[in-house]
Amino acid sequence: MGEASRTSEARRDAVFGRWVVFSPARSRRPTDLKSHNPTTNPSPAPGAEAAPKPSCPFCAGRESECAPQIFRVPPEDTLPWRIRVIENLYPALRRDVEPPEGGGGEAEEVPGELALSGFGFHDVVIETPRHDVRLWDLEAEGVRDVLLAYAARVRQLGEHPAVKYVQVFKNHGASAGASMAHSHSQMLGTPFVPPSVKSRFNCMKEVYDKSGNCSLCESSKDILISETPNFSAIVPFAASYPFEIWIIPRQHLSYFHEIDQDKALDLGSLLKIMLQKLSKQLNDPPFNFMIHSAPFGLSSSCLPYAHWFVQIVPQLSVIGGFELGSGCYINPVFPEDAAKILRELDCS
Amino acid sequence: MGEASRTSEARRDAVFGRWVVFSPARSRRPTDLKSHNPTTNPSPAPGAEAAPKPSCPFCAGRESECAPQIFRVPPEDTLPWRIRVIENLYPALRRDVEPPEGGGGEAEEVPGELALSGFGFHDVVIETPRHDVRLWDLEAEGVRDVLLAYAARVRQLGEHPAVKYVQVFKNHGASAGASMAHSHSQMLGTPFVPPSVKSRFNCMKEVYDKSGNCSLCESSKDILISETPNFSAIVPFAASYPFEIWIIPRQHLSYFHEIDQDKALDLGSLLKIMLQKLSKQLNDPPFNFMIHSAPFGLSSSCLPYAHWFVQIVPQLSVIGGFELGSGCYINPVFPEDAAKILRELDCS
Ligand SMILES: Nc1ncnc2c1ncn2[C@@H]1O[C@H](COP(=O)(O)OP(=O)(O)O[C@H]2O[C@H](CO)[C@@H](O)[C@H](O)[C@H]2O)[C@@H](O)[C@H]1O
Ligand SMILES: Nc1ncnc2c1ncn2[C@@H]1O[C@H](COP(=O)(O)OP(=O)(O)O[C@H]2O[C@H](CO)[C@@H](O)[C@H](O)[C@H]2O)[C@@H](O)[C@H]1O
Repeated sequence: MGEASRTSEARRDAVFGRWVVFSPARSRRPTDLKSHNPTTNPSPAPGAEAAPKPSCPFCAGRESECAPQIFRVPPEDTLPWRIRVIENLYPALRRDVEPPEGGGGEAEEVPGELALSGFGFHDVVIETPRHDVRLWDLEAEGVRDVLLAYAARVRQLGEHPAVKYVQVFKNHGASAGASMAHSHSQMLGTPFVPPSVKSRFNCMKEVYDKSGNCSLCESSKDILISETPNFSAIVPFAASYPFEIWIIPRQHLSYFHEIDQDKALDLGSLLKIMLQKLSKQLNDPPFNFMIHSAPFGLSSSCLPYAHWFVQIVPQLSVIGGFELGSGCYINPVFPEDAAKILRELDCS
Repeated sequence: MGEASRTSEARRDAVFGRWVVFSPARSRRPTDLKSHNPTTNPSPAPGAEAAPKPSCPFCAGRESECAPQIFRVPPEDTLPWRIRVIENLYPALRRDVEPPEGGGGEAEEVPGELALSGFGFHDVVIETPRHDVRLWDLEAEGVRDVLLAYAARVRQLGEHPAVKYVQVFKNHGASAGASMAHSHSQMLGTPFVPPSVKSRFNCMKEVYDKSGNCSLCESSKDILISETPNFSAIVPFAASYPFEIWIIPRQHLSYFHEIDQDKALDLGSLLKIMLQKLSKQLNDPPFNFMIHSAPFGLSSSCLPYAHWFVQIVPQLSVIGGFELGSGCYINPVFPEDAAKILRELDCS
């Protein structure tokens, strides 16, 4: 992969404005400390009988041990469920407290220390009734339905006047933060626009003001992994993490939650393939994925540079003080090299 | 600690402009995945014979296995060394490549994708010749000397026209990223101003423009852990991590590297106590600390809101997709509660 011949390079991206240092030599450094093990979910036993884990509240048959359900797929109670959207039993933000006055919006405009009540929504999406099935073990249609469930719930939350943003995310594996092994994802509806969303918009606005272009509307062939009619999967030019993947709508679209059935199927099939590729290449690594969309009620002047996308991040190394302090990441794998490996990997 | 009686709260700080969600209930959530173990350094055997680890290049007697030395303390070769500042053998940025033209500075002003050569400096500070001694096992004078070694090296790096910032940091324990157990810290001199430094300055400028105050010049009694003539140790109002500590000069000072002997001794004694408290309270947790200073060559109009400080972060939980996606952290421990515990903890 030309790894040996490459020297370091620093790159800044056009979406978050983040600097990343690419340094293949770093991966050769020795260690005398054991790093945490990347143990993740048990392997699936496709075709085998569904084996609920005695203690898992996300398994079929244990619904009563969960926090209240918001909706299920399919909706009919007479059929077994395939997806459940439920309240998080240990929510970071709570739906039962008073929302901040004026939605917190005005206070937010003034800089400095600020405290808001812990109002918000914290939901869990159980992606399958089976304990031994992972998201990418589902058919493309199954992944589509999970994406449509996210979108439906985001639309519901967007109707609440105090909810400014919904962060949809998935944790897979202990080193990616997951506390539950059963395949699931989460979303948090916040009464403020989160810091990374603000800085992403500031950066994309700067690029747009200067160049007239949306930062995500064109992508180079170098870093392309795969394309479908509606989406491109790439390794971003300044990927913060080795084998980080972005899935980007090829059309300029601002809101994830407006996705339709066809595009959701297209995205579902591409997401499935990308997760399969990561699992195969990196031996079922812990990972996170995050949907980056626009805050609700964006003014129309922002739409030209608001472009939603999915970020998938395998967790292969631990973050250290340099990253924590500077916000700049050290990545031992060049995006072109990671893209080539993932592009050529056969997952059929 | 009143934990049970507290409900969630969202807070934004006045330094980074980051939102943090405080949620004591979160710490009660169950898990069926083992999280990584916080194993760190071996315990020290104070007073025992120095026992070099056969394979550790940072131990006394194995200097020839290290990358070149930059300087040592004391400087005389006839005395045994107490501190060595050396080049990193696997540097993320390299001192032997061409620095970016014009220092990269002009290109940096234009938003969008940007690539620079991998020029920069990556150094290691070996804090003690002994494998079994931790930074806080040193006398206050020993910690002072480590701080003075940092400052001396930062001053040297600041003389290079292409170095825009130096991030000083320490990783302790595998889950805090450390690959070497022998007590050490690092610094990276970068040809760009790192993203978090930029956003910190933007935030502190906004606060200053609005209020005329430096965000760090006053601190509330609630969150104070300890004070010395020159420094305050606090748990920040919107701490991102449980038991996060900031050590802040009480006088408004912009650059860490201008620290003098007296202040370094004062900081050394406070840093030692804070690391002892964390070790005692949290059972020798993995942690990082970072020195947050100002970029070189700051214009004088920025000085009123540039105030350096040290951030200490115990690594008690794994970051998940919510934090990665939104930049907003979930912290189960309120700063007032953490400060009270740390304040009352006796480490004499
Ligand atoms: N019976 C039940 N009914 C309903 N919900 C139940 C439940 N039992 C457990 N839950 C909830 O299920 C969720 C499972 O989520 P994950 O495994 O993705 O990670 P978790 O949120 O624990 O923390 C990770 O993600 C967050 C957010 O990124 C990080 O803050 C954190 O450090 C990281 O470990 C938990 O939030 C838990 O509260
Ligand atoms: N013989 C020798 N001579 C000179 N130097 C030697 C050497 N042998 C090893 N080194 C260097 O010593 C350093 C030890 O540093 P740490 O243990 O603090 O963490 P490391 O930099 O490996 O990575 C952690 O910190 C970085 C920066 O935060 C993160 O990118 C990363 O993910 C995390 O694991 C390494 O950088 C290594 O290159």
